[in-house]
Amino acid sequence: MPTATPDPASTVRDTSSARAHKIDTPPGSLLHIGEVKVRRAAITLFDYDANNLIELSFSSLEESRRYEKQHGLYWLNVHGLHEASVMQEIGQRFNLHPLVLEDILNTHHRPKLEDYGDYIFLVLKSFAYDRSQRDCQGEQISLVLGPDFVLSFQERPTGLFDSIRERLRKHGSLLRRHGADSLLHALVDSIVDRYFLVAEELAEDVEQLEDRLIADPPRRAVEEINHLKREMYELRHSIWPIREVLSGVLRNSAGLIQAESLPYFRDVYEHCVQIIDQLDALRDQIGDLLDIHLSSVSNRLNAEVRVLTIVTTLFAPATVITGFFGMNFHQMPLLEHANGWFIAVLGILIGAAVLLAALLWQHRRMRKQS
Amino acid sequence: MPTATPDPASTVRDTSSARAHKIDTPPGSLLHIGEVKVRRAAITLFDYDANNLIELSFSSLEESRRYEKQHGLYWLNVHGLHEASVMQEIGQRFNLHPLVLEDILNTHHRPKLEDYGDYIFLVLKSFAYDRSQRDCQGEQISLVLGPDFVLSFQERPTGLFDSIRERLRKHGSLLRRHGADSLLHALVDSIVDRYFLVAEELAEDVEQLEDRLIADPPRRAVEEINHLKREMYELRHSIWPIREVLSGVLRNSAGLIQAESLPYFRDVYEHCVQIIDQLDALRDQIGDLLDIHLSSVSNRLNAEVRVLTIVTTLFAPATVITGFFGMNFHQMPLLEHANGWFIAVLGILIGAAVLLAALLWQHRRMRKQS
Amino acid sequence: MPTATPDPASTVRDTSSARAHKIDTPPGSLLHIGEVKVRRAAITLFDYDANNLIELSFSSLEESRRYEKQHGLYWLNVHGLHEASVMQEIGQRFNLHPLVLEDILNTHHRPKLEDYGDYIFLVLKSFAYDRSQRDCQGEQISLVLGPDFVLSFQERPTGLFDSIRERLRKHGSLLRRHGADSLLHALVDSIVDRYFLVAEELAEDVEQLEDRLIADPPRRAVEEINHLKREMYELRHSIWPIREVLSGVLRNSAGLIQAESLPYFRDVYEHCVQIIDQLDALRDQIGDLLDIHLSSVSNRLNAEVRVLTIVTTLFAPATVITGFFGMNFHQMPLLEHANGWFIAVLGILIGAAVLLAALLWQHRRMRKQS
Amino acid sequence: MPTATPDPASTVRDTSSARAHKIDTPPGSLLHIGEVKVRRAAITLFDYDANNLIELSFSSLEESRRYEKQHGLYWLNVHGLHEASVMQEIGQRFNLHPLVLEDILNTHHRPKLEDYGDYIFLVLKSFAYDRSQRDCQGEQISLVLGPDFVLSFQERPTGLFDSIRERLRKHGSLLRRHGADSLLHALVDSIVDRYFLVAEELAEDVEQLEDRLIADPPRRAVEEINHLKREMYELRHSIWPIREVLSGVLRNSAGLIQAESLPYFRDVYEHCVQIIDQLDALRDQIGDLLDIHLSSVSNRLNAEVRVLTIVTTLFAPATVITGFFGMNFHQMPLLEHANGWFIAVLGILIGAAVLLAALLWQHRRMRKQS
Amino acid sequence: MPTATPDPASTVRDTSSARAHKIDTPPGSLLHIGEVKVRRAAITLFDYDANNLIELSFSSLEESRRYEKQHGLYWLNVHGLHEASVMQEIGQRFNLHPLVLEDILNTHHRPKLEDYGDYIFLVLKSFAYDRSQRDCQGEQISLVLGPDFVLSFQERPTGLFDSIRERLRKHGSLLRRHGADSLLHALVDSIVDRYFLVAEELAEDVEQLEDRLIADPPRRAVEEINHLKREMYELRHSIWPIREVLSGVLRNSAGLIQAESLPYFRDVYEHCVQIIDQLDALRDQIGDLLDIHLSSVSNRLNAEVRVLTIVTTLFAPATVITGFFGMNFHQMPLLEHANGWFIAVLGILIGAAVLLAALLWQHRRMRKQS
Repeated sequence: MPTATPDPASTVRDTSSARAHKIDTPPGSLLHIGEVKVRRAAITLFDYDANNLIELSFSSLEESRRYEKQHGLYWLNVHGLHEASVMQEIGQRFNLHPLVLEDILNTHHRPKLEDYGDYIFLVLKSFAYDRSQRDCQGEQISLVLGPDFVLSFQERPTGLFDSIRERLRKHGSLLRRHGADSLLHALVDSIVDRYFLVAEELAEDVEQLEDRLIADPPRRAVEEINHLKREMYELRHSIWPIREVLSGVLRNSAGLIQAESLPYFRDVYEHCVQIIDQLDALRDQIGDLLDIHLSSVSNRLNAEVRVLTIVTTLFAPATVITGFFGMNFHQMPLLEHANGWFIAVLGILIGAAVLLAALLWQHRRMRKQS
Repeated sequence: MPTATPDPASTVRDTSSARAHKIDTPPGSLLHIGEVKVRRAAITLFDYDANNLIELSFSSLEESRRYEKQHGLYWLNVHGLHEASVMQEIGQRFNLHPLVLEDILNTHHRPKLEDYGDYIFLVLKSFAYDRSQRDCQGEQISLVLGPDFVLSFQERPTGLFDSIRERLRKHGSLLRRHGADSLLHALVDSIVDRYFLVAEELAEDVEQLEDRLIADPPRRAVEEINHLKREMYELRHSIWPIREVLSGVLRNSAGLIQAESLPYFRDVYEHCVQIIDQLDALRDQIGDLLDIHLSSVSNRLNAEVRVLTIVTTLFAPATVITGFFGMNFHQMPLLEHANGWFIAVLGILIGAAVLLAALLWQHRRMRKQS
Repeated sequence: MPTATPDPASTVRDTSSARAHKIDTPPGSLLHIGEVKVRRAAITLFDYDANNLIELSFSSLEESRRYEKQHGLYWLNVHGLHEASVMQEIGQRFNLHPLVLEDILNTHHRPKLEDYGDYIFLVLKSFAYDRSQRDCQGEQISLVLGPDFVLSFQERPTGLFDSIRERLRKHGSLLRRHGADSLLHALVDSIVDRYFLVAEELAEDVEQLEDRLIADPPRRAVEEINHLKREMYELRHSIWPIREVLSGVLRNSAGLIQAESLPYFRDVYEHCVQIIDQLDALRDQIGDLLDIHLSSVSNRLNAEVRVLTIVTTLFAPATVITGFFGMNFHQMPLLEHANGWFIAVLGILIGAAVLLAALLWQHRRMRKQS
Repeated sequence: MPTATPDPASTVRDTSSARAHKIDTPPGSLLHIGEVKVRRAAITLFDYDANNLIELSFSSLEESRRYEKQHGLYWLNVHGLHEASVMQEIGQRFNLHPLVLEDILNTHHRPKLEDYGDYIFLVLKSFAYDRSQRDCQGEQISLVLGPDFVLSFQERPTGLFDSIRERLRKHGSLLRRHGADSLLHALVDSIVDRYFLVAEELAEDVEQLEDRLIADPPRRAVEEINHLKREMYELRHSIWPIREVLSGVLRNSAGLIQAESLPYFRDVYEHCVQIIDQLDALRDQIGDLLDIHLSSVSNRLNAEVRVLTIVTTLFAPATVITGFFGMNFHQMPLLEHANGWFIAVLGILIGAAVLLAALLWQHRRMRKQS
Repeated sequence: MPTATPDPASTVRDTSSARAHKIDTPPGSLLHIGEVKVRRAAITLFDYDANNLIELSFSSLEESRRYEKQHGLYWLNVHGLHEASVMQEIGQRFNLHPLVLEDILNTHHRPKLEDYGDYIFLVLKSFAYDRSQRDCQGEQISLVLGPDFVLSFQERPTGLFDSIRERLRKHGSLLRRHGADSLLHALVDSIVDRYFLVAEELAEDVEQLEDRLIADPPRRAVEEINHLKREMYELRHSIWPIREVLSGVLRNSAGLIQAESLPYFRDVYEHCVQIIDQLDALRDQIGDLLDIHLSSVSNRLNAEVRVLTIVTTLFAPATVITGFFGMNFHQMPLLEHANGWFIAVLGILIGAAVLLAALLWQHRRMRKQS
């Protein structure tokens, strides 16, 4: 919502005018502009049916209190859950169970579905992956579906539902013509769709790490691997129960989902299964990273020992030959020879070459037999 | 309960007075002070309804025997389970099955729920984590819920239920206005809440060990890792069946839980699931510790071998060159040269430098290829 | 279909003539040739019953639009799913749910079965294994079974269904005499049969890698192992849900499968179970590859260290003996001896031999005891 | 049964007298002594009700054949299953299915429960742990519960049921006053109780091995670990199905268990769950042993290489300096100096000290960084 | 069947006579000899009831075609499944579903049970373990149970059913007096019994390999371990579904099994469970082999490095001392001493001894601390 921050006074006036202009006649784009208030505020409201739309955003609790529902459907979105008094009031208005309000405010919940008869309550998680930090940040999104309203509660504005707002604003859009369950589907769908993005970014980081492990293993490789593993597990862990949530929606025990919407929820359910599959593949890939790392550490140890062996071997003939000609025997071969020292050097070199050749031959033989 | 140890005489008197003052009129804070005895004793009793509260603590079995129930609800808490005669008497009074009494006295039980028709019997575990010893100490807490009473049995006073006592003492508190099932919920909730504390402390110790493993791996690293792992397993192992216990409470086959309390128990159930999730994440993290340790051991071995290689390499030219000029050939180059020895030293240094450079080049190359 | 690419004009004409020649009399091979158009086109159509067969292939949407069903059964196969308009039209003609069309176009689905009452919708995967690349390429094949039609959608022509076309063209073939469910069975069967081929090729690659790991372990062994593992997992992952799909077909809730066809689908189901068994065995075998690799790396390290030990041991006596006779003591044994230096050399050789023997003895002893 | 071995003649007489003295009047301790025969024999019989008890032991099949049941309940215990004829006869008398007899004689069965309508047949395992051999020896115990009899079959006398016999002999004991199901409970309970003993002894051996692994790892550590692991698995494997057996008893489909006995069986069931928990903890602990062993092997390798590095490093300066002053240059520094050799020795020592210091500094640095 | 290969002519004659001699009177051993033809042929037939038995073996399809059933029960055994025409004919005669015939001919099936209403079809696997090759060879055995017939199909004669034939030939044997379900039980029982033999032989090979791994680890130890593992998995994999097959028999949905036979099938089922238990124990044991191997490889590496350290250490003093006395200082201690060289040698030996002692002390200390 790119409009500038409004002055509170005008907000109040607009809202009241919105209430005043309650009209059942088909709204045009004019009405859209005139009545709908798009502002950066804590509470956003869409009051709509196929023909009408009132979009409001309240900056204070008082304003919203004075507003009364005018059309068939009602979507209330709340950003920032720190004001308990707001939650209290919403709870009373929509007759929510106190535990629902508590669950909304406590953002450490697992995804779940609770059927309260009149309404169903969903807790979901949305994720954003910060690639610079390799950090997966989760946000709890609570949804309440009633017969003619949807409530959504987010910790902070993430732009996740912007496209849905756009679709709602379009007069005659499919979303406008369907019920609250369709809106719920749109919200859940946009949450699940984002998982694919996050999983992809995570997968790219895993591949980057794999390349680095092979090219130039970092000192703290195991920690980096474990960090990625944990991020992946956190993601998987939050998405896994969403499967159950969606199959709970599909059971539709409260009867709030219309038969024609069920295939669409089944579709989201399948997306969930698909993303879990992707994360499972990712888990296997991350599990392989440790093998790759350990194998490269082993190879390095092998190479270190090989270098040591080669150095030792290369200089072994020198020890023997210079030692030999350094002995103080009265009679020694070659000592009087004018180029004796040169012959010794030749011997050193030839000896080193022979030993080195033997070493390499042994190395190749072992490789074939082991 | 910070009051000093009372003299037994006064206890007896107070108790009798408590029985004498049986009053159905709404009690105020005065009554609270006058009648309620909060002392360090084995048996504590809350006899209450929304308007009345009698709080007693008995230091002997005889005293309690003489007391008779006066209000709607009854909470008997017993600290210290060594006196079988006490248990016997309580068992007879509340008509408990002999096996229930046995299970209470045997503190090695798994958490479980048993439905005896008239009452349900719960065995739970409470934990305290001693960070200095890295030791997780469990305590068995047995609870019995009847239609109008709750019995709780603890091994020792841990202050776990103090806040519940405070809430009960407040006239008009929610807890006072609800039934025995609400009290049971409060007790179970306070037990489950403490798990979060213990899990957090354990998690901090795991992170500390992780840091130490990286900075300066202790000699007995594997044992420390295994110790933490075992503490974690013990915790998880005790909490896992509590999930079942709570889902048993939710099935409510005995009908002792009122419908309006069920969401609250479902809430505790979810806390249980959540803490198990946290412990699972912790288990993964502890599992990673061994990888980190093994990787750091491997790195150290690599480094040891590398040092050996470097030392051997650095001193190899010296062996050749000093050996060479130590040979007794009659004709040798440089021997007569005035600075011959200096040239030899130069040769040693240059040779060492060249070899070392070759070594490092090989090392880098290997790192890239492996 | 080996015929040359036709000119569009003749296609149109042929199709119209096909519509003109609608005949209920038994078709012979003449009719087959005359009416049936086998060309490389996007849409292929078999309109048949036991006695008649019209085989058409349309190069444009318009052509197909003008064609009307003439016989009892109808098989429409579509290659290439990029033209949404084609899908749209087919969807309308066969009254498919919009989500079915979406699922067909989105080729990243897991295999699944959906029962839409009038028809069932199957998503399957076909595989081809490119051995030069060691790459397993999957293709999504969507099937729709109605009471008297089968629709099949492939991403590209793979020749997978060629043999089925041949069987259909044979007058009086079993396939011709049975219903749409028999055709579906033939399609599914040909897809599942190809899995055996792919699994076999993968198994051969695993065995080749195993041989190479033993003979001459490649540098990137772990990566090669992991690559094969991932291909295997991808395959297994796609085939696993097909089991469920087929058991869904066997439940036959839509009643589109005739009783006499069920044993044949049960047969395909068992082939699926069998291929999963084969892939499980393959998974174990690939899992063993890493053990083999690590063991061969360990053996190589052992051998490196052994060579180092042998070199060090062989040259140790030389260091002592040449050093000894290089000392400047005024009185030394053997120095005056004419063959002293020869004795020293003998001593070096004997010492080396003795030490080497000790080394080998120790090595054998250790092998026995460890 | 501490009585001496009786002479057969008296046995026969006693048995006949036992049959003669069939009395329905309440028996006192006198009757207990007079009628009950406690001898080391194959077949022991308790024929009792609350007031009467006839305890017999038969040394031959013929004797037992002549005996006829006199009181309400009947417990027949058989030690040693080698005589098929005995089993045959018992089978006919109690109308057991031939397969039950076969299962009793074949002592390699898994624990199981079979419901034959008139009676239920239980196969259980009892264990004894021989700590000197670290060997877990199992014995199959078969039990048959009929409406008024219990049959028990053991491979050899182990004293397992002695305490139950004592309780039966006590006039007025609970066991006497209850039915056959109570006796079955007592038998099963004594079997399950012994598991705790065995598990504890095994746990002690595991801890002893853990201490030894740390202090002085034995050569065949892995084999010892695996041996303990296998003993533990054997134990666990036999106890695991007993859980099912007991839950089968709790289902009580044959109706042979009275409602009031069910809580007692539930108690045994929970002991079973508890012992499985203990074995699971033990399994984890044994699993950790291998990690501890491998880590200690790694540490030893590190230490070996470190010693090698230190030795090589310490002696490296000596090689350079003695080699330097051993060179035959005509002009060399220090050679003429009176204490030249002493300076050289100093140089060697200082060089070694510097290198050693560098080594230790590198070691510490690496420890911090890795 | 130890009789010699018959000439075809006599076979035909015998068969026809068999048909001629159709008698309902009780057969004695004479009839057994006279009518029954036991020869090595493809098709063997037992046509029997409690009193009569006709045993025939056909060498050609034509012969068997002419034979007509004469007694109550009918067992047809076919060796060698290569002749499709034979299968065709049998299929028609017993009215088998075409897929059953296909499954019989395709010997790569998993064990399974199929209920075709009139008859049930079982696919089982029999195994033989070739210890010289360490190879587990499976054979598919297909069984069909009808109301009054059993068909069995084997790939080759293995003597597996010989004892059953013997029991059938005995006049008045239990098998003769019972129905076709009893014969099926005998066949299945003999197949399952053989598994125990194979499992035992495999277990012996595992123990042999374990001993060899400890005494003298073979070069390709990991491959040998993996080979045994795979054989074990193949066995387990084939036996596992037989459990389901037997529990399918026990469900007895076709009603072909009489109630009195069910306990016997339950017995076979339990044998199956038992053999799977044994294979699970074997699997654990094979899994331990790798640990033993890796531990022994580690020990060998440790020993190699230790030898290297000892050699380096032993010769280090010689390097210093001979180097020292080889220096060309004008003034050196001991050089003029008559036994100077001897003192130097002593110094070398003492130095080596001291260093070696230090090494061992360090080694012991490390062993204690690690």
